[in-house]
Amino acid sequence: MARVIVEVMLKPEILDPQGQAIARALPRLGFSGVSSVRQGKRFEVELDGPADAAALDEVRKMAETLLANTVIEDYAVRVEEQ
Amino acid sequence: MARVIVEVMLKPEILDPQGQAIARALPRLGFSGVSSVRQGKRFEVELDGPADAAALDEVRKMAETLLANTVIEDYAVRVEEQ
Repeated sequence: MARVIVEVMLKPEILDPQGQAIARALPRLGFSGVSSVRQGKRFEVELDGPADAAALDEVRKMAETLLANTVIEDYAVRVEEQ
Repeated sequence: MARVIVEVMLKPEILDPQGQAIARALPRLGFSGVSSVRQGKRFEVELDGPADAAALDEVRKMAETLLANTVIEDYAVRVEEQ
């Protein structure tokens, strides 16, 4: 059993209204010193087997077809240290 | 300028219907070997200054009051290596 993390974020050139709303709310809530916020998704994928090269390839394919919209989003896949 | 990552995930004891829907869709889409999926949020917070202890304390407070619902969600704060 291994856990693989898939992080999905909007591409840098795509506007992120959710992140902007958070960044704009911060000063009102008493937080300063933040120049920008971007919001994305994080998936914890539990594998039945080990996180070997073949399994990571499968997870990458999964991210590409199901978890991320690659027209507007980038993704990163990494193995979580147990 | 430093980038701090805030990861927000549902607590383990809270049902995650989005993650379950993904896990159920995978075999149908030809992916096997995944035992479970959990979906959460990921925030990239850009700081004006360095990510020192005081700034990280601020980000933790921000996560607690704005980014996470601590009744049902856990959060983790970490500095992203540039």
